[in-house]
Amino acid sequence: MSKLYKKLIGPLVSLFFLLNMTSVGNAETTVSAEVGFIFNTFLFLVCGFLVMFMAAGFAMLEAGMVTSKSVSVICAKNIGLFSIAGIMFWMFGYNLAYGIPEGGYIGNFIPWSDASKVDTGYSDGSDWYFQMVFCATTVSIVSGTMAERIKLWPFFLFAAILSGIIYPIVMGWQWGGGWLATAGFSDFAGSTLVHSTGGAAALAGAILLGPRLGRFTKTGEPAPIKPFAASSIPLVTLGIFILWLGWFGFNGGSQLAMGTAVDAIAVSTIFMNTFLAGAGGVMAAAIVTRIAFGKTDVIQMLNGCIGGLVAITAEPLMPSPLAAILIGAVGGIIVVYGTKFLLAMKIDDVVGAIPAHLFAGIWGTLAVPITNSGASFATQLLGIVSINAFVFVISFIIWFLMKNTFGIRLSKDGETKGTDVTETGVIAYAIRD
Amino acid sequence: MSKLYKKLIGPLVSLFFLLNMTSVGNAETTVSAEVGFIFNTFLFLVCGFLVMFMAAGFAMLEAGMVTSKSVSVICAKNIGLFSIAGIMFWMFGYNLAYGIPEGGYIGNFIPWSDASKVDTGYSDGSDWYFQMVFCATTVSIVSGTMAERIKLWPFFLFAAILSGIIYPIVMGWQWGGGWLATAGFSDFAGSTLVHSTGGAAALAGAILLGPRLGRFTKTGEPAPIKPFAASSIPLVTLGIFILWLGWFGFNGGSQLAMGTAVDAIAVSTIFMNTFLAGAGGVMAAAIVTRIAFGKTDVIQMLNGCIGGLVAITAEPLMPSPLAAILIGAVGGIIVVYGTKFLLAMKIDDVVGAIPAHLFAGIWGTLAVPITNSGASFATQLLGIVSINAFVFVISFIIWFLMKNTFGIRLSKDGETKGTDVTETGVIAYAIRD
Amino acid sequence: MSKLYKKLIGPLVSLFFLLNMTSVGNAETTVSAEVGFIFNTFLFLVCGFLVMFMAAGFAMLEAGMVTSKSVSVICAKNIGLFSIAGIMFWMFGYNLAYGIPEGGYIGNFIPWSDASKVDTGYSDGSDWYFQMVFCATTVSIVSGTMAERIKLWPFFLFAAILSGIIYPIVMGWQWGGGWLATAGFSDFAGSTLVHSTGGAAALAGAILLGPRLGRFTKTGEPAPIKPFAASSIPLVTLGIFILWLGWFGFNGGSQLAMGTAVDAIAVSTIFMNTFLAGAGGVMAAAIVTRIAFGKTDVIQMLNGCIGGLVAITAEPLMPSPLAAILIGAVGGIIVVYGTKFLLAMKIDDVVGAIPAHLFAGIWGTLAVPITNSGASFATQLLGIVSINAFVFVISFIIWFLMKNTFGIRLSKDGETKGTDVTETGVIAYAIRD
Repeated sequence: MSKLYKKLIGPLVSLFFLLNMTSVGNAETTVSAEVGFIFNTFLFLVCGFLVMFMAAGFAMLEAGMVTSKSVSVICAKNIGLFSIAGIMFWMFGYNLAYGIPEGGYIGNFIPWSDASKVDTGYSDGSDWYFQMVFCATTVSIVSGTMAERIKLWPFFLFAAILSGIIYPIVMGWQWGGGWLATAGFSDFAGSTLVHSTGGAAALAGAILLGPRLGRFTKTGEPAPIKPFAASSIPLVTLGIFILWLGWFGFNGGSQLAMGTAVDAIAVSTIFMNTFLAGAGGVMAAAIVTRIAFGKTDVIQMLNGCIGGLVAITAEPLMPSPLAAILIGAVGGIIVVYGTKFLLAMKIDDVVGAIPAHLFAGIWGTLAVPITNSGASFATQLLGIVSINAFVFVISFIIWFLMKNTFGIRLSKDGETKGTDVTETGVIAYAIRD
Repeated sequence: MSKLYKKLIGPLVSLFFLLNMTSVGNAETTVSAEVGFIFNTFLFLVCGFLVMFMAAGFAMLEAGMVTSKSVSVICAKNIGLFSIAGIMFWMFGYNLAYGIPEGGYIGNFIPWSDASKVDTGYSDGSDWYFQMVFCATTVSIVSGTMAERIKLWPFFLFAAILSGIIYPIVMGWQWGGGWLATAGFSDFAGSTLVHSTGGAAALAGAILLGPRLGRFTKTGEPAPIKPFAASSIPLVTLGIFILWLGWFGFNGGSQLAMGTAVDAIAVSTIFMNTFLAGAGGVMAAAIVTRIAFGKTDVIQMLNGCIGGLVAITAEPLMPSPLAAILIGAVGGIIVVYGTKFLLAMKIDDVVGAIPAHLFAGIWGTLAVPITNSGASFATQLLGIVSINAFVFVISFIIWFLMKNTFGIRLSKDGETKGTDVTETGVIAYAIRD
Repeated sequence: MSKLYKKLIGPLVSLFFLLNMTSVGNAETTVSAEVGFIFNTFLFLVCGFLVMFMAAGFAMLEAGMVTSKSVSVICAKNIGLFSIAGIMFWMFGYNLAYGIPEGGYIGNFIPWSDASKVDTGYSDGSDWYFQMVFCATTVSIVSGTMAERIKLWPFFLFAAILSGIIYPIVMGWQWGGGWLATAGFSDFAGSTLVHSTGGAAALAGAILLGPRLGRFTKTGEPAPIKPFAASSIPLVTLGIFILWLGWFGFNGGSQLAMGTAVDAIAVSTIFMNTFLAGAGGVMAAAIVTRIAFGKTDVIQMLNGCIGGLVAITAEPLMPSPLAAILIGAVGGIIVVYGTKFLLAMKIDDVVGAIPAHLFAGIWGTLAVPITNSGASFATQLLGIVSINAFVFVISFIIWFLMKNTFGIRLSKDGETKGTDVTETGVIAYAIRD
């Protein structure tokens, strides 16, 4: 009823507020419901296409990081998983997440349908679009880690399950108003929900899949870098810039509203902090690698950017600019040492997605209470552990079942020839001087 | 007069509508004329820059698909045609299309000029910008098909004629309110007007130009793929992702308005359907090539995406999500078999633009009556035949005249050396290990 | 007081203006302060992310233009300088520019802080974001010129000084309301403030740094092009398209407002002129190189686009479409002959940034009075000379001090091996057939 009341009386009281509103800290707004509806929808669409473009960023990042005999298939994977994720999220995912009862554990399997009304505040289709690209992002994280030795279609099957079932379930726990939201967990744009989910699923797969042939020597040391050298650093760089661009949509759109001055200011703050955290991640990785290892490692700078961005994603609104830089810088450092840790564990993560998305995501989620007094360390830990454990275990079971039925790994001969020759029959580069 | 009335009385009746508007299905709006004007203009500008960026998508797609001795010139062609198209569309095109009498056949040659008023609903400059990038898209479609053997400046001359005269004429027939619009033809964002027009012009050129040297053996079979292998699959992939991104602007902006909740919902639905049709095209091509030919062909997946997107472009608003997926999937399958058909006809379409834009465009336009009861199969056929016949015949004549005067094809020696050495003197790749 | 008055009386007089407003040339608006605030903020954010993406454009342009042994480091430089610029602009730059007294010379060193109110018209954070990416653009211009022989960390140090101190000072002179603004200088979006500043800093550095080993023969002629051939023309092309896209944000956002129909029309006009000037630059370079040198030089077409865009940046609003094309065309021609001039001077500008940004920037700033009667040739000259002299001298001193302390140039051995091996230890391309 209060909404109806506001609609009736709103225009009349506007004048009063115009007189009194000296600061936008005042939550009352003079924007009409329909104008607000359009602004909110516009925000979802604009931020949505930015996040959609992150798919290109992941594709370029991964295409550049793999060796040149696995580039075509990583391209096929990226365009394929994005398509699969969208279809699954329409068919199952949306209402598995949003159809959840308050404080509950799982929604329903009814496909998305449009219920847009002015008083719901935004168009349902724009919300679907925005949430769908988040879902696709989660799956994108998985594809790089397992590159160069996984079979294409088992990967697509996992992509369908992750995007249609696993991700929507954890999404519902928090953003659908499920039990984690009720418990007070705080994850603004998905350091844990999106990034750790993708990272945990990738980790489970990488363990079961095993490293690329010859990646580790018999004594357990990583093999000399040469045979596994990244095929194209400029494509990796392009991928990172695209991801950084997309992240403004990722975090900015997660404000979910642009229909009041207060929201517009919030989105602006989020853009600023998102930029600064990425910058902190880049420079921290640059400084650390230069000092600790002698050379300024461009790959770690690029991946450090992701680490910084993932870290700020759990809370991009409350930190001061300085706090954003520092949160991002820690994310960048985590990427550098997380990469070393995985190598020491003989886990072969081709693109460094696990340090950047899983490890930095844990850090970012834990860091929320530092700047947001509404969050508690204990509840953050509860969310991190429950989501990561759930995703890791379910993913492990699925990878395990697939491994022991039709198999998930290419034959030795197929891997040696390269995924491009074996799986798609299209070589990636045919460049002659 | 009714507009003036609405302006006068509008603010007073707003309150009434605020009381009664429970659903946005109600076409009345509470948004003021000026706010609506800004929203509409903003939509054109945002969607316009997305479509503008499609020029980069075509450039990357084509640069990746040609062999490495023709990459620099395809880059020159793409940046050049875009420039030419914009200049021609300002000088001639805009009023050739929009200056058409109702139900007529051709407009006038007066250059664009600004006539923006609040009551026209949007800024003229933003509309010019949005329509201009459509015009450039049409020309982009032509450049790839004829790559590797056409001379640069005759191509530029054709680009000027296509963008300044041919495209604006067919554009006027429908979007300028000409005879096809009067006849009831339905082509929301241009499956036929833009994509088939580009494809038909390319087909006429490809026939007259002939295939690349050695492309077909004497027995008529395509030559072994190796000498004609695509130079860079990651660039093709990047191009497709950029095109997909741009397509949200292409179809979404074709709603032509964002100033009411109804329009905002429509744009959202269009974003959703555009995404799903592309996804359908990708996965249909993946499944078909895997089953029919043994390997999952990444190039067909990528081009299948375009096929799906072109197919939904004629009607991205009315289909249900499932219908959008299916319309796109058929588009993707058409690309796969259309490519085979062209090879069988010994027509050398270097990038597969004819199947993706012409064939899938015909399918998409024919499919409109399935989901839009306002369209009829007969009228759709009328539009398809008249536009494609007109564009093909005029283009054929122009290519023919150029061929028989200054020539359109490089010398054998020039083609063997490659267009890059012959035409621009800049090799595309100078990569040393 | 007039603002308060307007707020109180505004809604009541709206009806009157609705009756009388037949043309949007009328500056009165019916848009409420809060809706205007959101539109303005939205414009800054959207245009800001477009300009942010220009960082990727510069990275690709430069990565493609350098030889293949310096690609990884140019990537590291571009992601690093962007991060440094953002951090410095938050810490020092913003208030060095905006904290300037009216007609003054320098602001203060207080870090940015949020002071957003509805009556300031837009969110401070969105303005910071938009201005920050301009600052980063200025630094991006420097990195390409000095590629392949400069040490990484001295470059980063210069980037910090340029973004944190030099650029903000000249920015304040004009956009902060300093002495140049008071003098009547006119530079809408920064032909001089941004582009010439970057170019002048690069020129100072290039002179002190000296050309690449073997770039010029002993007789002073440029060496044969082969050993210095651009590593990837498609990446250069991609970079240019991204920059062109970003420029719509660069110039369009510099309208600084989208909250009235008048502003919306202005932004549209700017988009149109920005497009046409770039197109003029492309085609002028194409025609000139074809006629004067025999082949259509794709690199000059691409760089000519930048020249055209830089030229229109000083005044993208007032020119007619034809004037925009011509201003851009002259910019393109300046790039072609400016490149030859630098070679004749034995200044080694690896990517052609000095002709495109410094020379074309001077032209564009001088051209303002042609279409804007509010500007005078003398005042334009004053601004050009004072800013370029200031930036060149200060930059020269800083480069000189660095050169004579820890050095700015790699060892001969390091340069011969290439920056990638020497500085980052990551080769850029590892592509095997």
